[in-house]
Amino acid sequence: MQLLEERILRDGKVRDGNVLKVDSFLNHQMDVTLFSEMAREFYRLFQTDNVTKILTIEASGIGMACITAQVFDCPVIFAKKSKTKNIAGDVYTSKVESFTHGGLYDIIVAKEFLKPEDRILIIDDFLANGAALMGLSSLVTDAGATLVGAGIAIEKTFQRGGELLRSQGMRIESLAKIKSMEGGKIQFC
Amino acid sequence: MQLLEERILRDGKVRDGNVLKVDSFLNHQMDVTLFSEMAREFYRLFQTDNVTKILTIEASGIGMACITAQVFDCPVIFAKKSKTKNIAGDVYTSKVESFTHGGLYDIIVAKEFLKPEDRILIIDDFLANGAALMGLSSLVTDAGATLVGAGIAIEKTFQRGGELLRSQGMRIESLAKIKSMEGGKIQFC
Repeated sequence: MQLLEERILRDGKVRDGNVLKVDSFLNHQMDVTLFSEMAREFYRLFQTDNVTKILTIEASGIGMACITAQVFDCPVIFAKKSKTKNIAGDVYTSKVESFTHGGLYDIIVAKEFLKPEDRILIIDDFLANGAALMGLSSLVTDAGATLVGAGIAIEKTFQRGGELLRSQGMRIESLAKIKSMEGGKIQFC
Repeated sequence: MQLLEERILRDGKVRDGNVLKVDSFLNHQMDVTLFSEMAREFYRLFQTDNVTKILTIEASGIGMACITAQVFDCPVIFAKKSKTKNIAGDVYTSKVESFTHGGLYDIIVAKEFLKPEDRILIIDDFLANGAALMGLSSLVTDAGATLVGAGIAIEKTFQRGGELLRSQGMRIESLAKIKSMEGGKIQFC
């Protein structure tokens, strides 16, 4: 998606350890006008898939997911990163390794919001090693729901998570695919 | 706001410890159609205040904040709950005591996204003891920006945070104000 790629080139910053900082428009400050354009693109890609719910993970996926859900006219569920006393009863849970923060954490979704008849579109801001996407996908499988696919803002293809998950049959649509950030220079596929 | 009050009565559940569970439409599963109506109401209340940015706190405020920002045609910033390696450089920081999770945590916003010329509207899902709102407000003050006010989905007036902050001059507009949940029965102001 040209608009997103241009924005990454203009405002993205490459940091040590293959970190791409896009926090001026994607995941700290959020440009909701850009999100609307991205939502329209996700709709173009998945409009015939009868999506009933959008699933994302806190925190930075939530904004994009909500604006995308407006276009699909469906609710959003966000997986929570730890069990709080506000979530009573049964939950689906999965473990995720964090690329940004390091370490393992649990993600959970209340069972009442993921049903076998649901057709789930996952929306998230980044795909790198695929850990979050694998965790979310396993929640969908545990619920017996159908995973329609995943809509990702930025995929770092050199980190191979997308390659692995696609080889397992997951449909992944990434709006910007970065093949290299070597020397601080961003190159798209 | 009648639509929200009706939804709370229909789908909200009162739990021990004055916890109101609204996770079927507000903060786990999110009804973005309801959020659009709430956004329009926030706009009606704050439309003449020249809001330049909406500030919220991760995670459950982000969806409402983004959909509200579409109506105000401005960006969102969400305060993060701990320092990650994605946030380099200078940040404003404040301490917040969590009602839901217990304990103290830091909230941070990168200085580059809060400027003295900004006119900030805070959006959040709950106002109870006011801790999150105080923390967010102090970030705005530290930046020398102007706090236009706060738009809250659900205020528990019996927990007094709103009363305290209004007495200090903060403008707070809550779309549903709950004065009592005694015996599991929700009563609005």
